[in-house]
Amino acid sequence: MAVSCPEATNLVTSSDTESPAEQQQQQDQSLDTFSFAPLRLQRLPHLTDYLPDLQTLRNPLDSNHFFHPTDGFYVSPGDVILRQIVYDLSGMFPQPAPHLAYHRAGPRERVFFEPSGVRAAIVTCGGLCPGLNTVIRELVVGLWELYDVREIYGIPAGYRGFYSREPVKLSPKMVHGWHQRGGTALETSRGGFNLEKIVNAIEEKGFNQVYIIGGDGTMKGAVKIFGEIHRRKLKIAVVGIPKTVDNDIGIIDRSFGFQTAVEMAQQAINAAHVEAESAVNGIGLVKLMGRSTGHIALHATLSNRDVDCCLIPEVEFFLEGEGGLLEFLDRRLKENGHAVLVVAEGAGQDLIPRTAAQKEERDESGNPVFLDVGGWLKSELKKWWDRDHPNELFTVKYIDPTYMIRAVPANATDNLYCTLLAHSAIHGVMAGYTGFVCGPINGNYAYIPLDEVAKAKHQVNTRDHKWAWVRSVTNQPDFLRI
Amino acid sequence: MAVSCPEATNLVTSSDTESPAEQQQQQDQSLDTFSFAPLRLQRLPHLTDYLPDLQTLRNPLDSNHFFHPTDGFYVSPGDVILRQIVYDLSGMFPQPAPHLAYHRAGPRERVFFEPSGVRAAIVTCGGLCPGLNTVIRELVVGLWELYDVREIYGIPAGYRGFYSREPVKLSPKMVHGWHQRGGTALETSRGGFNLEKIVNAIEEKGFNQVYIIGGDGTMKGAVKIFGEIHRRKLKIAVVGIPKTVDNDIGIIDRSFGFQTAVEMAQQAINAAHVEAESAVNGIGLVKLMGRSTGHIALHATLSNRDVDCCLIPEVEFFLEGEGGLLEFLDRRLKENGHAVLVVAEGAGQDLIPRTAAQKEERDESGNPVFLDVGGWLKSELKKWWDRDHPNELFTVKYIDPTYMIRAVPANATDNLYCTLLAHSAIHGVMAGYTGFVCGPINGNYAYIPLDEVAKAKHQVNTRDHKWAWVRSVTNQPDFLRI
Amino acid sequence: MAVSCPEATNLVTSSDTESPAEQQQQQDQSLDTFSFAPLRLQRLPHLTDYLPDLQTLRNPLDSNHFFHPTDGFYVSPGDVILRQIVYDLSGMFPQPAPHLAYHRAGPRERVFFEPSGVRAAIVTCGGLCPGLNTVIRELVVGLWELYDVREIYGIPAGYRGFYSREPVKLSPKMVHGWHQRGGTALETSRGGFNLEKIVNAIEEKGFNQVYIIGGDGTMKGAVKIFGEIHRRKLKIAVVGIPKTVDNDIGIIDRSFGFQTAVEMAQQAINAAHVEAESAVNGIGLVKLMGRSTGHIALHATLSNRDVDCCLIPEVEFFLEGEGGLLEFLDRRLKENGHAVLVVAEGAGQDLIPRTAAQKEERDESGNPVFLDVGGWLKSELKKWWDRDHPNELFTVKYIDPTYMIRAVPANATDNLYCTLLAHSAIHGVMAGYTGFVCGPINGNYAYIPLDEVAKAKHQVNTRDHKWAWVRSVTNQPDFLRI
Amino acid sequence: MAVSCPEATNLVTSSDTESPAEQQQQQDQSLDTFSFAPLRLQRLPHLTDYLPDLQTLRNPLDSNHFFHPTDGFYVSPGDVILRQIVYDLSGMFPQPAPHLAYHRAGPRERVFFEPSGVRAAIVTCGGLCPGLNTVIRELVVGLWELYDVREIYGIPAGYRGFYSREPVKLSPKMVHGWHQRGGTALETSRGGFNLEKIVNAIEEKGFNQVYIIGGDGTMKGAVKIFGEIHRRKLKIAVVGIPKTVDNDIGIIDRSFGFQTAVEMAQQAINAAHVEAESAVNGIGLVKLMGRSTGHIALHATLSNRDVDCCLIPEVEFFLEGEGGLLEFLDRRLKENGHAVLVVAEGAGQDLIPRTAAQKEERDESGNPVFLDVGGWLKSELKKWWDRDHPNELFTVKYIDPTYMIRAVPANATDNLYCTLLAHSAIHGVMAGYTGFVCGPINGNYAYIPLDEVAKAKHQVNTRDHKWAWVRSVTNQPDFLRI
Repeated sequence: MAVSCPEATNLVTSSDTESPAEQQQQQDQSLDTFSFAPLRLQRLPHLTDYLPDLQTLRNPLDSNHFFHPTDGFYVSPGDVILRQIVYDLSGMFPQPAPHLAYHRAGPRERVFFEPSGVRAAIVTCGGLCPGLNTVIRELVVGLWELYDVREIYGIPAGYRGFYSREPVKLSPKMVHGWHQRGGTALETSRGGFNLEKIVNAIEEKGFNQVYIIGGDGTMKGAVKIFGEIHRRKLKIAVVGIPKTVDNDIGIIDRSFGFQTAVEMAQQAINAAHVEAESAVNGIGLVKLMGRSTGHIALHATLSNRDVDCCLIPEVEFFLEGEGGLLEFLDRRLKENGHAVLVVAEGAGQDLIPRTAAQKEERDESGNPVFLDVGGWLKSELKKWWDRDHPNELFTVKYIDPTYMIRAVPANATDNLYCTLLAHSAIHGVMAGYTGFVCGPINGNYAYIPLDEVAKAKHQVNTRDHKWAWVRSVTNQPDFLRI
Repeated sequence: MAVSCPEATNLVTSSDTESPAEQQQQQDQSLDTFSFAPLRLQRLPHLTDYLPDLQTLRNPLDSNHFFHPTDGFYVSPGDVILRQIVYDLSGMFPQPAPHLAYHRAGPRERVFFEPSGVRAAIVTCGGLCPGLNTVIRELVVGLWELYDVREIYGIPAGYRGFYSREPVKLSPKMVHGWHQRGGTALETSRGGFNLEKIVNAIEEKGFNQVYIIGGDGTMKGAVKIFGEIHRRKLKIAVVGIPKTVDNDIGIIDRSFGFQTAVEMAQQAINAAHVEAESAVNGIGLVKLMGRSTGHIALHATLSNRDVDCCLIPEVEFFLEGEGGLLEFLDRRLKENGHAVLVVAEGAGQDLIPRTAAQKEERDESGNPVFLDVGGWLKSELKKWWDRDHPNELFTVKYIDPTYMIRAVPANATDNLYCTLLAHSAIHGVMAGYTGFVCGPINGNYAYIPLDEVAKAKHQVNTRDHKWAWVRSVTNQPDFLRI
Repeated sequence: MAVSCPEATNLVTSSDTESPAEQQQQQDQSLDTFSFAPLRLQRLPHLTDYLPDLQTLRNPLDSNHFFHPTDGFYVSPGDVILRQIVYDLSGMFPQPAPHLAYHRAGPRERVFFEPSGVRAAIVTCGGLCPGLNTVIRELVVGLWELYDVREIYGIPAGYRGFYSREPVKLSPKMVHGWHQRGGTALETSRGGFNLEKIVNAIEEKGFNQVYIIGGDGTMKGAVKIFGEIHRRKLKIAVVGIPKTVDNDIGIIDRSFGFQTAVEMAQQAINAAHVEAESAVNGIGLVKLMGRSTGHIALHATLSNRDVDCCLIPEVEFFLEGEGGLLEFLDRRLKENGHAVLVVAEGAGQDLIPRTAAQKEERDESGNPVFLDVGGWLKSELKKWWDRDHPNELFTVKYIDPTYMIRAVPANATDNLYCTLLAHSAIHGVMAGYTGFVCGPINGNYAYIPLDEVAKAKHQVNTRDHKWAWVRSVTNQPDFLRI
Repeated sequence: MAVSCPEATNLVTSSDTESPAEQQQQQDQSLDTFSFAPLRLQRLPHLTDYLPDLQTLRNPLDSNHFFHPTDGFYVSPGDVILRQIVYDLSGMFPQPAPHLAYHRAGPRERVFFEPSGVRAAIVTCGGLCPGLNTVIRELVVGLWELYDVREIYGIPAGYRGFYSREPVKLSPKMVHGWHQRGGTALETSRGGFNLEKIVNAIEEKGFNQVYIIGGDGTMKGAVKIFGEIHRRKLKIAVVGIPKTVDNDIGIIDRSFGFQTAVEMAQQAINAAHVEAESAVNGIGLVKLMGRSTGHIALHATLSNRDVDCCLIPEVEFFLEGEGGLLEFLDRRLKENGHAVLVVAEGAGQDLIPRTAAQKEERDESGNPVFLDVGGWLKSELKKWWDRDHPNELFTVKYIDPTYMIRAVPANATDNLYCTLLAHSAIHGVMAGYTGFVCGPINGNYAYIPLDEVAKAKHQVNTRDHKWAWVRSVTNQPDFLRI
């Protein structure tokens, strides 16, 4: 979606001339019209890719007693959402690759499943995240009430539950009130992924719709399950619902539970602020979730002006010397008598000295294990103070609110999101799509190929204005050694 | 931004043939590439429009001790955001008007105000809305810390405060903690708009940056103030920050405080649900804000699956007869023993009988006064029950949480929003823009001409999927008489 | 419990002499020792009163796998609690009636029910109150786990449910999580009291333990049920658990849900305060529960220093004239620009003019109906302002949070209270007591005869220091016309 | 306060005879009347003890514009509160020592300070506790509004602030809203107690009322300050306001902030419960405050039925073997699939192995340092599971919410308490009392000699019914090796 506007090239030529007004106007006019590169619609896998002869029916919503689908109610294959919507008109040369569009989520006029023939399975994998139970509940209620599906099962204990546990039959009565409960009523676990056993179990138990809720590891597994089902040419639709409280999944705007986590993080930051303010030279230190990305820390900081500095994995920092964290804190303590520090758990991993054992240690995925950056910072701060300010009072209060954040029920914003997400997934699956994920793109629910999401990463863009804003809001150092 | 793709015309030709798979694939392929209509960049008023000889300076952020603007930190005139991002590719003929793009918000490389020469005035008008104090606080802190502005004043009591009250000097110390306080520390009032007096006062008191926070009436006033200032050729920048808890302002994604209002509305809905569940044939009835639009009611309902029916101004409803509200409630009471009803304050105004006096009565703007739809519904429900189910127990509990919703502090989501909004406003004003509003468009902060926003309306699109979703989520009637 | 201390008579003889120190010391010494009037232990009805030959068993707690009753674990008939504990030593002549003591609540060494023979019924009557579900849950869990009772039933829909609805079988699994739900899972209703039908139903369905949760009307009914059971000489124990969010039941320290109500009332008061502060001459007006007593209003005011004046049924007030409410508000508005008013729903009933119809109207109990003191005050305040301050801005925001207060789950303090209350009730019933109520007296759980509680009233003592404290805390008028 | 009732001796002689009814009645009658031992009134230090010639004035409340002290408004020296109110009538031989009564708190008719001559100092010492700011605020507002005191100062940074920091002048305007802020606006610190320097500073700065808010260490310091002031015969009143979130101070019913802490602890327990429930064999482990006492753990457990076991310092426990914690957890995991454990920080200190260094290490008071019982338990649980259940899934989530609990603002219950506490303190000091503490005894505010409180300890009475109740509520082991 490039622009064919040569005049845009001079947009950045701003100068120090006396009368920029004219120039400004010129620029504004010069921007008036641009033509765009062509648009490419992202293709979605569909059951008919390998089962070309599937029958379809009219959508059962047509016969709903209470509402009457109006014109435009059903989403058509031509309904799309643009992915990129922010442009620098002046910088679009040479022409970029064609611009991407995605299918919109929503009910389709024709469906590929007879309601009475559906057997749906729902599984949750990995760690907790606010909203899990809402997603499960809405899947159950949506399938039941919109599409008259009656065979809906929860798979307990994550992926391993497919082959090692009995499915739990679910109904609207049973899931009543789950949207106000934290955690997952289905239980969850990490690992346990065994492709052969899982697909065999799905086949044996006769499931033909599989709803998989989990993080990026889980999505990678879902891609494989989808592949194997494709290979076996089974009429089983697989949909992934991305779950990551860290918000580190790409393409979609944000993941569910994220806003709730940011909200809850305020409690910890407020507590840290109160502890810091109430002490003499008090520092409140809060560690927030975020191994590879600092989204929670970033958003929590932008929501709470009491944070003095926010450290995230995407930005290297250093302690000693000019422009370093200690100099900055020293200044803040002098000015205000206290300071609040927010650190994402993945920040500063390279700075923490590792024992020989820790150097060897790997987590399940073969990566070096994470060290507790909060504990390390706390002790470094104490050492620094004792060295540079002996005999002066000093207090560091360190708060790690992780479990208190992720175990709460979703707030209203996330509950709404989870509801629309679950309904999106149902509509897509009923319409025969498979191997896809649903999620909002620029505020609109879309369908995205599973493998595309499984590969995408979403990091804080530190060249972007949002990070600039944090820095300007907190006036914190940028840790550039200049 | 139309498509020149003749093949799209047949996109909607779906049929009942036996093998839709092929057809599906065809469609998908056929959608592959489209070319777009040209893009038109929305022009922003600028001080240089009528003061062509203004001097500029480098942005003072350049000399900030702690951070170093990197490449791309400053927003250039070519940085834009697309307004429309959802398309029906199949329906884009004939070609639409050129597509609109807006300038992105953010710091500009050159500014039109010397920090020491700035005198900023901040005013809040109209009703309360969560986040008001955060916006004020961030304006103060942002001006002070980013641009070294020291003369910042709050105008008490709304528009009339310009000419009838003394401005209050504000500083970061003074606004400390305001983001955790509901209401507006500046006091607010309705009306009091006197163009002549206001602009005279602005001129006399030497303000050259005017930040106006208020609803659509206030924005209309701001347009006039901007016009008068333009006419007088004064170097005074005017920026509007739209405030409407109802979320009824157009173009921008949503207004601040809205998410908090939806969150707080959950409390009322939960209480209504508990009251209804705990009674025999209990109905919980909640009236939520929304005179011309049902956004709060809609979002609160989608966030809370305990609502059985949601009535909004955009959808006419009726009580008696088939497909009517009473039939629906009768059914729900039989099934579940209770029901929860959410009604936006502007719903059903045509149904409520008006006394002769009420027919005459007009509000300040000359519109018929609003009648209490909640009270009316409550009494209608009782009458109906006594008539149709004499001697059976029945309870209606009516909750009007309006003031408890709008007087709370903003939640984290809104606080973040208010922070970015205030900073957007500051950057725009410092860059010499005037007569504009800032707000998010498709998730990105943009600058929009004041008069465009003042005219725009944002109603619930009942042909849109979101309303369809509510209906499917609640399974409520669509009140179409068929 | 009188004192035989003649020297106490001169205690109040304080004088204006120069050196009170000596006098003070004298007084202190003179108070050293007193002897008390005799103590009378309040007798409790017991099944053996009319069934003298009942067998007893050792308490099944003895054989609990996990804990081993230690010495002093069981409460003996000699374990008592004093009712009056505050004395004016100087004013105790002539000798008062003997002082009352009550039996302590708790497990008894011997019980009068074989676990396998118990059939327990639980009923909730009247309006909602935070903690209802906790009491139900704890009755179920306590009976089940401590006394191995398996036949536990909920009576739906209040008293009428005994004869018109099927009992619902309850078990710990079923009541899981109820302590975090507002309302009553058993449904409740007012009225429906039919002594004959109720006792017949109890007898027919074979219930031998009846747990009745309700307000003073309900307790009066419970007295009659107990009387009729006594008359029929049935081995059925009846226990009352007083429920009144207003806290207007006598003898016991406070009723459950009261603290939660006071907590929730803060939200409304905060909202009123914010609305008032944010307006020009703003008044925030909150109506709180309390028909005959102002406990909630009083406690909510003492918990929240933002209240300027608190009006309760126990204190008459007046609007006009010196020392009146309007003069007081005028002064506060002048000083602070805003004011917050809390009014109990029963306050000022004599001041509100009644229409002829309203004069006739009686509620179910034959009392004049209550008029909306909040609505009346709001309109009086507006009239006053228009009259005395024409053309000045003025705002009254009126909040009635009743249902949002009473429908919430109990807070921790009340949940603990409800737990101990339910367990107290169970232990007493198992020990053969009947026609009693359990509740805390001076902080210790006691058993009190049902009829004593049904007759007792608990009003705010306006000669007492607590009311004095409110007045001093708010500096509000005492509305004495002097 | 013993009983002279020989017949009470046979009260406990219960037997297994067939007809206990008669016996029951006999007992009840036999209990009818008792005479009590004499009462001894606890003497309070007073300024006139060493300054016998002080002048007094009528209480300035007399001339308050808005209220008119009624008869009985002022507390007289004869107004007392009984300390012991629970008796075992059958066990009161031989006669106990005379029963204690305490002076009631409240305004006195005559005061020993001229308002214009008062210079009050307020200091907060030790750790944070919800309500600290409310106490400070109410001291300021109460002194100002009730007694027209204008010279009120906050001492920053605890005891050391007397001699090392400048006092901060306080006024009602300044403390506005402090009751809704956590922490202490005055800053606090531990240690820094230097008797000579402190009393010198008090004298030099002319303070004559000293309000000291702190824990038992602080109260011991206050006793010394009072002693030194007494020795120097200064007209300076010293009052202690006991602050201990653990609730481990004796004589008074409970300390402020405690109820808020119990409330906040629910969040942590709920999170632990959700984490445990959502995992396979999940254990949620919460460490709560309480070094020498388990009050918070105990109350939090009684407020939340989701706790399976509560460990406190007052009860020894063990892990391995019959009746041990591991056996208990094994059983719970088998039954429910998950378990929740609450542990007070002082529990199990003897079980945790100490390194040589840890054995040496002492805290500031010379006691062995506390080890992290939570961390230790977590690792012991993992070891146990790996040993006894290899290859089975298992999860322990450990939450330490300490700072998030103690840094919150006080809830309504505690705010009311803090208000009455502060006013009690003021009234007592104005009346010339010194070297005392104020606090509720059996629900009524009293004055207690400082040294008595400084020595008292308040532990959970494990022979008491409340502990029995926890055990019965959770059905947890009593860890008696039998």
